[in-house]
Order: sequence, then structure tokens, then C-alpha cells
Amino acid sequence: MKSTIMSRRDLDFLLYEWLHVEELTALDRFAEHSRETFDGVLELSEQLATRYFAPHNKLSDANEPSFDGQTVTLIPEVKAAWDAFAAADLLAMGMDAELGGAQLPAVVAQAAFAWIAAANVSTSGYLMLTIANANLLARFGSAEQIENFVKPMLAGRFSGTMALSETQAGSSLADITTRAEPVDDGSYRLYGSKMWISGAEHELTDNIVNLVLAKIPGGPTGTKGISLFIVPKYLADGARNGVAISGLNHKMGQRGITNTVLNLDGAVGYLVGEPHRGIVYMFHMMNEARLGVGMGAVALGYTGYLKSVQYARERPQGRPLGVKDPTTPQVPIIEHPDVKRMLLAQKAYVEGGLALGLYCAKLVDTGDTALLDILTPVAKSWPSQWCLEANSLAIQVHGGYGYTREYDVEQHYRDNRLNPIHEGTNGIQSLDLLGRKVTQNGGASLMALGERIAVTVKKARDGAEAGLADQLDAAWQRLVAVTAGMFAAGDVEAAMANSAVYLEAFGHIVVAWIWLEQLLVADGHDGDFYDGKRQAARYFFRYELPRTAPQLDLLESLDRTTLDMRDSWF
Amino acid sequence: MKSTIMSRRDLDFLLYEWLHVEELTALDRFAEHSRETFDGVLELSEQLATRYFAPHNKLSDANEPSFDGQTVTLIPEVKAAWDAFAAADLLAMGMDAELGGAQLPAVVAQAAFAWIAAANVSTSGYLMLTIANANLLARFGSAEQIENFVKPMLAGRFSGTMALSETQAGSSLADITTRAEPVDDGSYRLYGSKMWISGAEHELTDNIVNLVLAKIPGGPTGTKGISLFIVPKYLADGARNGVAISGLNHKMGQRGITNTVLNLDGAVGYLVGEPHRGIVYMFHMMNEARLGVGMGAVALGYTGYLKSVQYARERPQGRPLGVKDPTTPQVPIIEHPDVKRMLLAQKAYVEGGLALGLYCAKLVDTGDTALLDILTPVAKSWPSQWCLEANSLAIQVHGGYGYTREYDVEQHYRDNRLNPIHEGTNGIQSLDLLGRKVTQNGGASLMALGERIAVTVKKARDGAEAGLADQLDAAWQRLVAVTAGMFAAGDVEAAMANSAVYLEAFGHIVVAWIWLEQLLVADGHDGDFYDGKRQAARYFFRYELPRTAPQLDLLESLDRTTLDMRDSWF
Repeated sequence: MKSTIMSRRDLDFLLYEWLHVEELTALDRFAEHSRETFDGVLELSEQLATRYFAPHNKLSDANEPSFDGQTVTLIPEVKAAWDAFAAADLLAMGMDAELGGAQLPAVVAQAAFAWIAAANVSTSGYLMLTIANANLLARFGSAEQIENFVKPMLAGRFSGTMALSETQAGSSLADITTRAEPVDDGSYRLYGSKMWISGAEHELTDNIVNLVLAKIPGGPTGTKGISLFIVPKYLADGARNGVAISGLNHKMGQRGITNTVLNLDGAVGYLVGEPHRGIVYMFHMMNEARLGVGMGAVALGYTGYLKSVQYARERPQGRPLGVKDPTTPQVPIIEHPDVKRMLLAQKAYVEGGLALGLYCAKLVDTGDTALLDILTPVAKSWPSQWCLEANSLAIQVHGGYGYTREYDVEQHYRDNRLNPIHEGTNGIQSLDLLGRKVTQNGGASLMALGERIAVTVKKARDGAEAGLADQLDAAWQRLVAVTAGMFAAGDVEAAMANSAVYLEAFGHIVVAWIWLEQLLVADGHDGDFYDGKRQAARYFFRYELPRTAPQLDLLESLDRTTLDMRDSWF
Repeated sequence: MKSTIMSRRDLDFLLYEWLHVEELTALDRFAEHSRETFDGVLELSEQLATRYFAPHNKLSDANEPSFDGQTVTLIPEVKAAWDAFAAADLLAMGMDAELGGAQLPAVVAQAAFAWIAAANVSTSGYLMLTIANANLLARFGSAEQIENFVKPMLAGRFSGTMALSETQAGSSLADITTRAEPVDDGSYRLYGSKMWISGAEHELTDNIVNLVLAKIPGGPTGTKGISLFIVPKYLADGARNGVAISGLNHKMGQRGITNTVLNLDGAVGYLVGEPHRGIVYMFHMMNEARLGVGMGAVALGYTGYLKSVQYARERPQGRPLGVKDPTTPQVPIIEHPDVKRMLLAQKAYVEGGLALGLYCAKLVDTGDTALLDILTPVAKSWPSQWCLEANSLAIQVHGGYGYTREYDVEQHYRDNRLNPIHEGTNGIQSLDLLGRKVTQNGGASLMALGERIAVTVKKARDGAEAGLADQLDAAWQRLVAVTAGMFAAGDVEAAMANSAVYLEAFGHIVVAWIWLEQLLVADGHDGDFYDGKRQAARYFFRYELPRTAPQLDLLESLDRTTLDMRDSWF
């Protein structure tokens, strides 16, 4: 029976038939690799996901972490999964060889990690945060910090967190008030309180390495005065540091991972890099973190899709249109056009999202930052929106059963609802796209994307897909024209007012392009898998891309409805 | 401080300024009533909602009913709320005076009940089911059945359930297998198993009156062989009847109301009305039940909207566009255009949904069944989709806080996710609309709706809203033309394949009409409330109605993408 966690067939299609990731081995960094090593990691991830992660997904949802004032208790299966992942040396799969890493391309690492996230997004969170933390420190930390913190994290002995937000400063990091007072030995003492910190307290590892943003008194105001500190739970001498949680947040989903207020009461902290450069360091990692959130959303959407396909094949209910005889057998619901629509929509969302995420990950590997920059807000927000919608459709396919905790899909929906919120809400992503990425470097990123799309359009026109090529080309040209018009009007407030609508339209056009790419790869290939790709691409162009036309109309009009709305009118 | 459960101001606007429900008192049935009695019920509902229902909403979510194999235990607050509602004589608010009812118009009863559903949808479920059950029996039951079952239900001593579905027969009721064997005393013995039965076991009341669909052996096949039975938990002599639950379903939301498999093992049942007429009786109540589901979705959307407005006013975060100085104070997030957009969208959805629901309820009172028939699938499905979306936006406005169980909105979102599923999934509603309601009686219902819309359009053109009138008129005319074209092609399969898309487009056009109606009522009135109505109407016409254009394009093309999709391609 095929796995309902992820689709290896689709991953192979995307990695090898489309993105040709073997070609990355021509780069020095990946020269030791081959399709065999990539396949090995994918297989290993599938095995770990199946054996250690999926089996406790519902269990850790139903048995949230508990806190007795001192210690956080998790169900033991989380630790077993952590250990298995660490023992397989996967924490370092993307890291430099000199740190003991496997130097895998990001695109392969993301594909492999999708298995883990799809199987159990909460437990995968401990891993993801540790990997992100280690990546950041490996790049910006001192040799001593790498020795003391990065290496134990990569070995799975320590784990990591990222402590940015505070209760009064979520989207607005400029407003953090945690302060770091320098002391004579070169370290700092941190005072303040952090919010929404995942993985900040548990017994999975010997130590927890918190990466904390704080302000050194006397520095510049706003984000330019923010520095980055390592604040370990335990100090080198084994003493407990002055960092402690005050309770646990109770969430709608992602219940298996602790999320807490983290209080710093004179905690010892070690400065990373230079003072006042904390935001810069953080944002260096942000593309990957946001890509990771997008991939997490894809993974949840994907597993929900696979489970609802399986359910639709097995569930008999109703009869074909026109069959009135109630003594004939009921048919599996996958036979009903509206169920096919709900499955096809899911397929278009999750396979489109996966393709987009892996495409972006490959840009990390090739260092194509102009394109990566502009695609990142899309790669974060589009799956957060549409793969959540996929999870809703997965519930709908299951009918009443999908609404119960006896089936998996309601949990995926709850888990996925976090993704439009964290690592910058989708609203923040839209400001990043329209207010920064679209115009940066004289529009270089936008042009780079336009060039890629033009290549695809030309290839499709030369082939058998001229109709879809024209449709995509027209949508893209219109988007570019509308974008120019919005700024040409000189009213920045009006241009930015509907940034969220812009992001939606932009995202759907990008994913239409990604689907046309997949369609071109499928061209000339027979068989169910390729027929499915063709049909999903067709679905996307007929049902989804046309949504953008009224959105672009609205944007073009520089509509002021939201701007003119007053508080007192609500 | 204004209530965050529902808006009395908006209810007053809709009931009195728009629908002029006082005029219903000209009808004999409502002759004893007046605005004073209507206001009294609305105030009473608000008080009960505030005092008895809202306070235990989170509590009953966190403390689900438990079953020890014999008895179901609920938190005591549920019983207190039940008793308070019953003591206020509200169970009979819409019933005939001769049964002790208040003969309130359905439109007022729905408005009043919205307070209860918004405050605590799970606890309101016990009430709603009992009212629906009593309504059905009052209409189709014998005098003895009314005496023995309806009167105790209206007094709050008994409660009611509706037992239609079985595990193998949800959407397809023709396939139920529960059988009812006649016995000599005129009663029946029922054998079988029912699924998704809410309120089927608890200690709230002395008895539980299950209304059960079953087949009498030898009857016609399919739905024409289904009869309706009363199967009480306790028989008249106090003996336990052969009806028992075998456990409890555990749901994503609506956790406070029991939902179970109900096993019938030779249970004594009393036939309601004539044999084989069960489905007819059930469907007589279906319009109101589906309207009730739609209103429940509205209520959850509405309270989430009010709470997110309140949060947005109180939560400082970030600064206006262009303010770069981080030492200036943060502004409440309601100042940000994208937050205004999310609040305005919610306002347009929940106030539009409420208006639609009340409009339909008034059609019940006036007996305008042609119009009610065609609007019912919309009144059920549109709020189920868009007021759920409103709840998602309410979470998004709350940011990370909205994702925690410390705030209310995540529960509303979970609770509301049931509404597109039960009482006929939205897919089933779309088949009902396109396959039945649109064409029934030679299109009489569609024409009746068109006439109402034309009146509104004319009024708007004569007034100051010619632009919006033209926009609505064009959308409606196109819908009618597309509908005709779909059937003219003679390919019923293709016409029906995208019924869900049809329902969505139809719903948005109907709600645009409802918004234009509200706008006309607001015309000439000053003040924040009316300005808000105007802006929400504008929002709906600019952001929402245009969504229908690509949907109608798709429908017009008789697209076969879903029909052509094959099982093996997924």
C-alpha cells in the first residue's frame, strides 16, 4: 500500500525529472553527492517518518506537554523520534562537512524533511528549530560557540530555540524591550520576557540553546539596536541559567510542541557576532525559515490529500447521476464529480506548493538570491493559505468522519492554521513582497522572475500548450503592468492598502507558472502519474488562475475602501 | 461596553428598519404580538446568552461529555443553561398557542436564538434539536403523541434528537437499513444502528425523544420506504427502552454536545403519521433545519467578528506606513489597512449572512415557499463557508494569540467547521440548488428571486446607487443566462459537474443583493452605524461580487476537468 504521508513518486518527479538536482553535484559543495546519496536520504526519511514520527502524531496531540512548575513532560515517543533522527545524523544533513555535516543540497534536505513534517509536525518542530539555530550559529558564531553549542546540537545532545517575539512585540520587532547588560567577563546578563518560544523547555536533550534578541543599553533605537545572544538553559559548569518558562501556551493545533513565555532574569548570555547586528543575522536565516514554514504547510496539506484520496476510494456512498434504483450498489465517493473536484483542488494546491517550495530550495543551493528574495514571501504564504484550504477540503471529503478525532484530517487542519501566522503573518509577507521585494534593486527580482516565466511560456508555445502559455503570459504581463501602475500613481498608501490581495494574485500566477513547468515535464510521457499531472495543471489554469483577474482589477483601481474605513464604523 | 456575543443594533436594523417585522402582526397568527413583545424576547435572549450560555462555552469545550458505559456526564453549567432557557418558556417561542407556545414569528425566534448560538453553540444544540423535534411532531404526530412527547419537550422536561444517518448512509438516506417490525399492540420494534446522533444520551432531562428513520419490512425500496418513529429513551412505565449509545464521537469542535452511535435493539417505536412517509415529514422541516444551520454559522462568525474588532482596538502593534521612528508609540492594529480589510471582510460576511438568514426566516412566516425553496441551500451553505472564513480572519487579526485556547476565536473556528458538513453537506446543497430548486415548477423559484432582485435594482437606480445596481443586475442577468445555457446544452452530467461552483457564484450574487438592500435602507441616514453599513456594502461589491465572474465563465464553458479525472490519476 502506498504511503499516505508523502508521495515519493512526486518527489522523484520534482527533484529528478524537473529540477534535475543531480546536476547540483557539479558544484564543489555537493561534489561528493550523487542520486544514490539523495535517494538514500529520502528513503531514510520515509522510514523514520513512518516508524517514529507518524505513530505518535495523534498521541502527542491528545497528550499535550505538561509543566509542573519545574519540568516539562512530553510523551516518551517524542524523545524516541528525536533520538532516531539524531542517530541517523540528519540534524546535520545540510551542514558543512567540517562540522560533521553531510552538505546535502537544501532542495534534497527540504524534500527529506517534508516526510518528517507530514508525519508529525509538532515533533518535527523541535528538530527544525535546532537545525535553524545551528545554521545561524555556524554562520555567525565564534569558533568557541560552534564548538560549545553547534556541535552538541548537531549530535542531538542539545536542542535549540529562536526567541524573537515579546508579548508587546510580535510583528513589530523594533519594540522589543529585553535588555542585555554587559559584564566584565565579556558576557551579558539578560532581563526581560520572550513570547511564543517553541521548544524552550523539555527533557529531550541535555541542554537547550536559546537564541535571544535583546537590546544592549545605549545602542540605537528600533531594530538597529538589537543584538543576538546565546542563552543556554544550563551553563558550562552545569548550573541552571536564569532563564525559565512561566507556563505553557495552549494552542489549537501543533499541540505536541511546547510553546511558552520565556523569562530572562539576569540570565547569562553570550553575544553572537557584533553588537546591534542581531536582526541582520536573523534575516540571513529568514528566507530558509520562511521557506521551512511554507514546506511545513505543504507537508500537512499533502498528507491530508493522500488520506482523503484513500478515504474516497474506500467509502461507498450514493450513486451516479441518473441512477435512481436504490437497490443498485453504492459507488465509492471518488466517482462523484464534486468529490473529484475537491481532490483535484487539493492535488493542485499541494503538488503546486511542493514544487514551489523545492524550486525555492534549489535557489538556495544555486545562490540565486534575486529570484529567491521575491519568491520567499510567496513560498511562505501561498502554501499557508492554500494547503490549509486543502486540509479543509480533506475534511469535507471525509464528511462527518473528517470532523472527528478518530480520523487524521481535522488535526492537520488545526496544525496547519498556525502557518499563516508565524514567521511573519501573511499580511507581513504581503508588505514584504509589495513594499520591498517587488521594487528592490530597481525591480531586478521582479525582472528575474519575469525572465524565467518567459522561458517557460516560450517552451510551452513551442510545444503543445500554447493556450495555457498565452493564459499565463497574459496574467503575468497584466500583473507587471498593474504593479507599475500602482506605484506610478504616486500614492503609496493606496498602493500598499491592498497588499494582501496583491500577494494572493501574485502567488496564484507564480503557481500557475510552476504548474506549466510541471506540465511541460510531463509532456510526452504516458501513464497515470503523468495524466494526473496534466489534469491538475488543467484544473489550476481553469479553476484557479482566473481568480486573479478580479483581484488585479481591484489593485489597478487603487481601491480605497479599506483606507477609508473608520474604527468607529465597525 | 458593547456585547461581543451579537449586535443588538444590527438585529434592530435588520428586523425593524429593513424587514419591518412589526408588519407581521397583521397576520392572524402573530396578531397578539407587537414590537414590544419582539424586543422583550430579544432582550431575554441576550440576558440568558450572557448569563448562562457564554460563561461555560470554553469550559464545555475543554471538558467534553464523558460516558461510563451507562451514563453521560456533562458539566453542570449545561443543565443550568437548559433550565434557564426552558424556564423562560423559549422552547415554545415559535409554537402554537394551543400547545402553550408564544407563536412568535420565525424571523424573531431566529434572531433571538442567534444570541444563544453565538454564546455557546454546543449547549444551544440540545435546545435546537428539541425545538426541531417538537415542531415536527406538533405537525405530523397524533394528539396522543403531542400530549406525551411534545408538551414535555416544550416544558423542558424531555429533550429531543433527530436520528437519520447510519454509518453506511449519510448523504444517501435511501440506504438506511434500520428496520421497524410491527407488533400486535400497534407499536413497532426497531433494530439497527444510527450514527451522528447529537444529544442522544445525557441527564439533562427526564426522557429523550428520539425521532428515528427506519424501514418497515415489505415497503418500497429507497427513500420511499422510510418511515418515521418516536423512540423514547424511557417508556411510559419508566422502563428503559432498547435504545442505547455505544460510545461518544470525539469531534474537532462543538465538543460540548454529545454525538454518538445509537443502537436500537428491539426498541419500542411509535409510528409518526403514515408508513413510508418519513422522508416527506423530515423534509417538511428541512428548510428550517438548514436555515438553522446557516444561522448557527452566522452566529459563530458574528461573535468572532465582534471579538476581533475589540481586540484590534486594544492591541498596539506597529506604526502607520511611512512612520519610521521607533520611539513613537505603537498604534492599535485597527489602524492598519490590512487589519481593516480583515475586519471589513468579516463584517461583510457576518452581517450579510445574518441578513440573508433573517430574510429567509421571514419567508417562513409569510409562507413564501417558492422563494424560500431556492434560497434555502444558499442560506445553509453560504454562511457555512464565509462565516467560517470570517472566523479564520478573526484568528488572523489576533495573531499568535488567536491560535491559543486562551482566546475565544480558535474555538469558534473549530465549532464552525461542522456547518459545511451537517444537515446536507455543501456539495449536497449545490445538487439541491442546481439539480432541483433552479428548475422546479418551470423555474418559478428562480423567477421569483429575479423579480425581487429587479425591484431592488430599480430602487437603487432611482436612488443614488445606480453603479452598484448595474453591477448586481449584470451579475444576475449573466447568472440566469449561464444557467439557461448549461441546461440548453443537453448534457446534464456536464451541467451538474460544477454544481459547487454554481452554488458559490449564486450565493455571492444573492448576498450582493442582500447588501444592496441594506445599503438602500441606510441611504439618507447619518452616523457611524450607517456609514459602516455603506462601507461594508461597498466592500462586498468591490472585493466579493467580482469573484463570480470567473466562476460563471467556468460554468458557461461546461468544463469537464473534474468529469474527465480518473481515480487512478490521483
